[in-house]
Amino acid sequence: MITEKKQKAAQKQAAEMIRNAGITITDEEAGSIEVVDFGLNNLEKEGVQVFTLVQTERISVKVLAMFPNQTEPEHWHPPVDDDPGKEETIRIIAGTVYFYIAGEDTFKEGFIVKGKDDCYTQRKEIVMKPCDQLILAPGEKHWFQARDGGAVMYSFSTIARDALDQFTDSNIVRITKVADS
Amino acid sequence: MITEKKQKAAQKQAAEMIRNAGITITDEEAGSIEVVDFGLNNLEKEGVQVFTLVQTERISVKVLAMFPNQTEPEHWHPPVDDDPGKEETIRIIAGTVYFYIAGEDTFKEGFIVKGKDDCYTQRKEIVMKPCDQLILAPGEKHWFQARDGGAVMYSFSTIARDALDQFTDSNIVRITKVADS
Repeated sequence: MITEKKQKAAQKQAAEMIRNAGITITDEEAGSIEVVDFGLNNLEKEGVQVFTLVQTERISVKVLAMFPNQTEPEHWHPPVDDDPGKEETIRIIAGTVYFYIAGEDTFKEGFIVKGKDDCYTQRKEIVMKPCDQLILAPGEKHWFQARDGGAVMYSFSTIARDALDQFTDSNIVRITKVADS
Repeated sequence: MITEKKQKAAQKQAAEMIRNAGITITDEEAGSIEVVDFGLNNLEKEGVQVFTLVQTERISVKVLAMFPNQTEPEHWHPPVDDDPGKEETIRIIAGTVYFYIAGEDTFKEGFIVKGKDDCYTQRKEIVMKPCDQLILAPGEKHWFQARDGGAVMYSFSTIARDALDQFTDSNIVRITKVADS
C-alpha cells in the first residue's frame, strides 16, 4: 500500500524522467502513471512506474520508469486461455538496466534486495544500454534493476494482463492499493 | 524504383527527423530505415520512411517519418489465415498529421495528390498533433498526410505483413526497388 501523497510524488518524478528521455506525454497522461509497489511497501527498493500508451485486446505498449537502484521483482507471464502468454520486447531509452533471465549464472554488476535471495532466482546478467533490445518469450522468468541514474525503457508486447502475472515472491500483490493520504 | 543515392539521402533526412523528435536510434538503425515510394517514382509526393523497431510473429513497432507534404497512399490491412488483419495504433510524436478514414466527408485541411481523386476515397479528416492517438481496426481503409513541417509518428500493431497490404491505387507495388546508382 502507498499513500496518495507518495503516489503523486512518484508519478511526478517518473513523468520528469520520461520527458527527459525524449518521450513527450501530456499532463493527463503523466497523471495516469501507475506507481507499483507490488504490495511490498518498499517502493524505492522493489517497484516500478508504468505509463501505458496502448492497451487493446491484442497489443500493449508501456514506458517503464525506474528510480535509481529500484528493482522490478522476478516474474513471468503465464498462458491465459488460447494465449501462450505475453511476449514482450524491452528497448532501453535512457540509463543502464541490469536484466536477469534463465541461463548460466553471470551475476556481477547488480545486487539482490537484502534477505531476498530466494525471490531472485534467475542470475544470467544482461547489461542493457539505450537502444539495446531484448525479447522475452511467454513464460520466461525475468527481473531487472536500474542503478544510480535510474532508467527509462519501452515494453512492447502482446496483450498485457498484469493482474495475472506470476511472481517468485509469494508476498507480492501486483495491483497496488492506494490509501487516502 | 529509387536510386541508391536517393535512398541514402532519404534515410539520412528521416533519421534526423526521428532524432529531432526525441527518439534515440543507432547509426546502424538509421541505415535500416526503409524508404518506400510504393513503386510510383514520386517519393516526395507519395511515400513514407519507416524505421522498424520490433518485428515478431505477434507484434510490430515502427516509427514513420513523413517529409513535408508527403502522402501515404490509401490502404488497408486484410485478413491473413487465422489473423483478422493488422490492428494498428498511431501516436503522433512530432508535427501535424492529417488522417483520413471512413465516415462523413469532412475533408478540409489536406490535399489530394493531383489527378488521383479515385485513389483517395476516404474523406473523414482527423487532424492529429503530438500525443494524439488513433486505433485502426483490421481492414479499415486509411491514408494520411504531413504538411509543411513533416511529421514523425509511432505505429504499434499486431504482426505486420507489409507485402500483403492492399491499396486503392492499383499501380502501387508495396516493396520498393532500389536501383544501383
